[in-house]
Amino acid sequence: MSDPGLTRFSINQMTVKQLSLPELTTACRELGIGNVGLWREPVQAYGVEAAAKLVRDAGLRVTTLCRGGFLTATDPGERAEALADNRRAVDEAAALGTDTLVLVSGGLPAGDKDLRAARERIADALAELGPYAEQHGVRLAIEPLHPMFASDRCVVSTLAQALDLAERFPAQQVGVTVDTYHIWWDDRAPEQIARAGAGGRIHTFQLADWTTPLPEGVLNGRGQIGDGAIDMREWKGYVEAAGYTGPIEVELFNDALWARDGREVLAETAARFAAHAGDGARAGSGSGSGSGSGSGK
Amino acid sequence: MSDPGLTRFSINQMTVKQLSLPELTTACRELGIGNVGLWREPVQAYGVEAAAKLVRDAGLRVTTLCRGGFLTATDPGERAEALADNRRAVDEAAALGTDTLVLVSGGLPAGDKDLRAARERIADALAELGPYAEQHGVRLAIEPLHPMFASDRCVVSTLAQALDLAERFPAQQVGVTVDTYHIWWDDRAPEQIARAGAGGRIHTFQLADWTTPLPEGVLNGRGQIGDGAIDMREWKGYVEAAGYTGPIEVELFNDALWARDGREVLAETAARFAAHAGDGARAGSGSGSGSGSGSGK
Repeated sequence: MSDPGLTRFSINQMTVKQLSLPELTTACRELGIGNVGLWREPVQAYGVEAAAKLVRDAGLRVTTLCRGGFLTATDPGERAEALADNRRAVDEAAALGTDTLVLVSGGLPAGDKDLRAARERIADALAELGPYAEQHGVRLAIEPLHPMFASDRCVVSTLAQALDLAERFPAQQVGVTVDTYHIWWDDRAPEQIARAGAGGRIHTFQLADWTTPLPEGVLNGRGQIGDGAIDMREWKGYVEAAGYTGPIEVELFNDALWARDGREVLAETAARFAAHAGDGARAGSGSGSGSGSGSGK
Repeated sequence: MSDPGLTRFSINQMTVKQLSLPELTTACRELGIGNVGLWREPVQAYGVEAAAKLVRDAGLRVTTLCRGGFLTATDPGERAEALADNRRAVDEAAALGTDTLVLVSGGLPAGDKDLRAARERIADALAELGPYAEQHGVRLAIEPLHPMFASDRCVVSTLAQALDLAERFPAQQVGVTVDTYHIWWDDRAPEQIARAGAGGRIHTFQLADWTTPLPEGVLNGRGQIGDGAIDMREWKGYVEAAGYTGPIEVELFNDALWARDGREVLAETAARFAAHAGDGARAGSGSGSGSGSGSGK
């Protein structure tokens, strides 16, 4: 298959975590999907070298490895362990042949209320990890997470904050992850995407849709493309206007999707991508009145 | 009682919604609480004039009425009904003797993905409602809600967005609600509080703490003061530096608190307020290492 609507599509492994790595690579080949974003835990369980060989033999490009980060600890021992774990993540990314390691910064330590200090500890960690990553041909991509995760998962809540951190370092060391789910509400995000693009810092672009009601704990509420409130083509327009023409990952955490047949979910996700964010002939099917006006809105 | 730690404390009715209006006013008198924020539904159920007399006879000041808003409909009939309902809300606020009507803007209409257009419809509505409110001695207080409510409840997600709307109108018509729960994650919020204060637009200041995990639907996860990640004294410092010296409401939506005895929750909330945000002698008990450094952090 060579559906032009899927040229830039990358399936993030978490979207179909019910599939084993061999099942995923086989399904990708059968469905004409050429890109995958991988996660450390299933890769480690399969074996990093074995996973690298598997995806290489399947002709798949690894667009990102998720994820490093969790760099906000104040305890020196925890901090040293986090840094060591992030160096291992860089090694794994290099072994898998991807140039991008996604970073989720980490939340507030228990009882701590100082977001600003936590963000500064991330900068300190990046100063150590950035050069190490560059030596291994890997770029760190700070992912701002939705502000609803600010206390327990990620103190970096906006693209502006992520860029304020990233710009202290060379772009080949540190950039950002642009994920529609986390930034769609932010009227400043389009200008921040332009800022990121001008600096060569859009290291990956990920899609998920915003659906409600949010589930308890809010982590696994990332909606299937087209099911929610986000105009995917508008955001694709922003990153393209900023110069990003790379792969686009669909990364969904969603209990309902995980309960279904993984191959069926993968096919559905590819079709939704083609309709709502694909290049080429099929792109038009997603560009009705709701999404056709693109970045000019 | 005349606890100086409670001088500025106002109990938002929703925090103890298990109490009837007479139970609430009685409990306030017994606990030395002089201010209440009321909600339209229980006030209407009791009767607006009767409620006004009840709180007046109890010597209570009504700090706000919650809430008007929901001004994002595109359907002309729905829109006209929303405007009419907001005029009634202004009338009710005036009858209750409060000068502040809190506005929750409303979410996206079903199937709509255009946040910018929805925000513009709010401005159109404010142009109609602002003069009406001023004629009745009531100020509209746009409340930015946390970005996790952007699609289904409130398309105004930051204090900056709220001020962008409010500043199109005179301050005696339209200002903002500063609520710690909704803005605590936002590194721009302190400067926006200063902006609001300089324009005389901080029409109310509300507190709730940020606790996780968030419950399904995320609406009823507002944490008791002191239980979460927000440094109340820091935010109180910001609004005070911006010139706000008025009442401070504690507004909690929390299933666990609603399941308890309402009078006990009221007493606990007052004590938490005094410890974490009170003026005067008892204020020191909440200003340990986590909260003592105030706005200078």
